[in-house]
Amino acid sequence: MEKNKKVEVCFTPELFSKYRDEEAIIVVTDILRASSAICTAFKNGVKELIPVGTLEEAAAYKEKGYMVAAERDAVIQDFADFGNSPFNFTEEAIGGKSVVYSTTNGTQAVQLAAGCHKIVVGAFINISALNEWLVKANRNVIILCAGWKGKFSLEDSVFAGALSEKLIESNNYSTICDSALAAMDLWSIAKNDLLTYIDKAANRTRLKKLGLDDVMEHCHTSDLTDVIPILKNKKLINVTDY
Amino acid sequence: MEKNKKVEVCFTPELFSKYRDEEAIIVVTDILRASSAICTAFKNGVKELIPVGTLEEAAAYKEKGYMVAAERDAVIQDFADFGNSPFNFTEEAIGGKSVVYSTTNGTQAVQLAAGCHKIVVGAFINISALNEWLVKANRNVIILCAGWKGKFSLEDSVFAGALSEKLIESNNYSTICDSALAAMDLWSIAKNDLLTYIDKAANRTRLKKLGLDDVMEHCHTSDLTDVIPILKNKKLINVTDY
Repeated sequence: MEKNKKVEVCFTPELFSKYRDEEAIIVVTDILRASSAICTAFKNGVKELIPVGTLEEAAAYKEKGYMVAAERDAVIQDFADFGNSPFNFTEEAIGGKSVVYSTTNGTQAVQLAAGCHKIVVGAFINISALNEWLVKANRNVIILCAGWKGKFSLEDSVFAGALSEKLIESNNYSTICDSALAAMDLWSIAKNDLLTYIDKAANRTRLKKLGLDDVMEHCHTSDLTDVIPILKNKKLINVTDY
Repeated sequence: MEKNKKVEVCFTPELFSKYRDEEAIIVVTDILRASSAICTAFKNGVKELIPVGTLEEAAAYKEKGYMVAAERDAVIQDFADFGNSPFNFTEEAIGGKSVVYSTTNGTQAVQLAAGCHKIVVGAFINISALNEWLVKANRNVIILCAGWKGKFSLEDSVFAGALSEKLIESNNYSTICDSALAAMDLWSIAKNDLLTYIDKAANRTRLKKLGLDDVMEHCHTSDLTDVIPILKNKKLINVTDY
């Protein structure tokens, strides 16, 4: 089979205008912690997640009676029901519910990609299911790393490398994108002991200082779920409800 | 000795506002080909290089009688004396002269860094001399990769990793910058056979299509010169004339 689809990697939202392709599927990733938390929420039966960019929007939803998850710089906001830890999104807390969600980097990245063919959320915990779905969809893929306040982040980039490698191994994808090539090289170093590799990442240090690094193992474990969160009418739903 | 200085890497000029530090020394690099060509020009005795961002400025200098090097997308411009190959900057052509210089990515990156403590030009061909000079200068360093039209480029990033590693090995530098950590990991893969590694880079493919890839070995050879081009009064001079 000819490798007729392309995968590209965009290392931060600040660069997305250089990569944007409205015909492509955009995979948004924010490993620590938004995309891992979003996949966990769908694993635990959330009905829908409403991503909002600003805290003002999130607070307004709270006043209207919505359950709200909102953090900035990894810290839960006063008005919110909970923050950005995947462990907050338990079945008891969010099963069957609509939850509004705003984070430092992750939800803005989802909104930035609006207008593209499809926007899905990727994490290590759903990587194989996502890869299979993308291969079936048979479209160009851009992996959009949420990064940290516009900067490159190691854990998102390593995930982008892992997913790029899977797509290319499917034999229907290739790349001529330097970022994808670099991301796959980083993944080749990280893959044998991912948690040890990610120990040096700035986001891991930030979470540790805040006592929030209990999520490291969860966020770097592959295939805990087969959910694929996808944007529809400005809300994230599971692809099975699309 | 305490490691009291920081090295950071900015993968593209589009992200520089996130990294900018006016107290730092900025190392601008554009391995294929501007920073390699600039170092070659000083090796061959150019008096000064005047970086200009736009082709209009370059053409205006030409009308005033200056020698002009100007290219876009690797192709020499009609009005220019020559383009962006290091091999153009021979001692016969440019020894003792002032040359105006405008390229797709490299000269804009130099101008973007204006206002910072010092701005120098780095390439593999001057890497050890540059490293020694930086260690003596004893200031925070930001390595600014010119990239390709705002995107990440592999060869610039690998150079950034090589220089970061040297600085950290000097024992006076450390980093907590994910980009620098990633760049050093890429360098760790590339270093044993740099030319073969860079064969996959998009810029190498672009130059090959144009028949301009005769520069690959020159641009990826370490320590052909000890010149350090530095910006002073909007012109690049050798640091020995600073």
